[in-house]
Amino acid sequence: MQDAAIDRLIQQLSKLPGLGPRSARRAVLHLIKRRDTMFNPLIRALEEVAEGITTCSTCGNVGTHDPCHVCADARRNPSIICVVEDVADLWALERTAAYRGRYHVLGGLLSAIDGIGPDELGMSKLAERAAADEVTEVILALSATVDGQTTAHVIADKLEDADVKVTALAHGVPVGGELDYLDEGTLSTALNARRGV
Amino acid sequence: MQDAAIDRLIQQLSKLPGLGPRSARRAVLHLIKRRDTMFNPLIRALEEVAEGITTCSTCGNVGTHDPCHVCADARRNPSIICVVEDVADLWALERTAAYRGRYHVLGGLLSAIDGIGPDELGMSKLAERAAADEVTEVILALSATVDGQTTAHVIADKLEDADVKVTALAHGVPVGGELDYLDEGTLSTALNARRGV
Repeated sequence: MQDAAIDRLIQQLSKLPGLGPRSARRAVLHLIKRRDTMFNPLIRALEEVAEGITTCSTCGNVGTHDPCHVCADARRNPSIICVVEDVADLWALERTAAYRGRYHVLGGLLSAIDGIGPDELGMSKLAERAAADEVTEVILALSATVDGQTTAHVIADKLEDADVKVTALAHGVPVGGELDYLDEGTLSTALNARRGV
Repeated sequence: MQDAAIDRLIQQLSKLPGLGPRSARRAVLHLIKRRDTMFNPLIRALEEVAEGITTCSTCGNVGTHDPCHVCADARRNPSIICVVEDVADLWALERTAAYRGRYHVLGGLLSAIDGIGPDELGMSKLAERAAADEVTEVILALSATVDGQTTAHVIADKLEDADVKVTALAHGVPVGGELDYLDEGTLSTALNARRGV
């Protein structure tokens, strides 16, 4: 019915979360109207990420460098490791600008239903990192859901032998809420009020 | 603060209508998680449109061919021209699958405030097309706003000498609309334009 190339572009864009077919059409028209200034920067930005994207072999963060910009930043405190479920949570914590330590991205939560155990989440790697001399504290910044709290308990158990203080985000995180959707104020308050478990 | 390449991509995506910084971040994470299958088709679709995009020299539609797929389609009725403000309106009419004639895209509406006169909208080109022997009807599918109706009147005046029937979209109750919620203008128009059943 329509121009085939435009149709394919609408189809590709509508696969992104938050963009349905209607908003994808709007986005494509917007791009076409500003074709001289918008296509190339977008294509270049996509190519740059597509070609360079990699997972940090230390912490599991994604980026175009390995080690990632957090692990490579010498100004960041190497004695604290903040454990997060997902890269989205790491980004959310970075936006608060309240945390200057390192991270550990689990890539998921323990879940009996989905068959995700400690091995799938690379918990031994976390234990290894926590056992390093320089590390003095592990912050568990996991969602206040059942799976998140279960995961936090299992990690705290695993780290019992390591000579580190294990802390968790303070109350203030709404029960049932997910980190990614929290406002920065609540998140930084919870971070500053972290407590021992 | 964040990986520079990822930041640039988020920034580019958040320029699209309907995507703010938050949903652009979600979209980028979605892309990164499905990096093997999503980046390349999207980049290729963008490149294809960016390289091929052109405006149809006959009707003003956008696409990757000139003449566009509507003007090039021999099965479409060349005796009817539907005048629309914008490519978005053309797309909306195409989605109805109720129209099988040709189009003419004005690219805007007459507007004294914005200094858009008949010349800016290429009305003489429309008059030229309407004067062709094969054309018997011009449909004015313009918005029911002041600017839209002004433009419709001016076009109707311009086409008075051409041997064509000039029609406009019917005003009335939207299909599925409830009378209770309709504005008085629409309701009285629909009442005055009542027809036998």
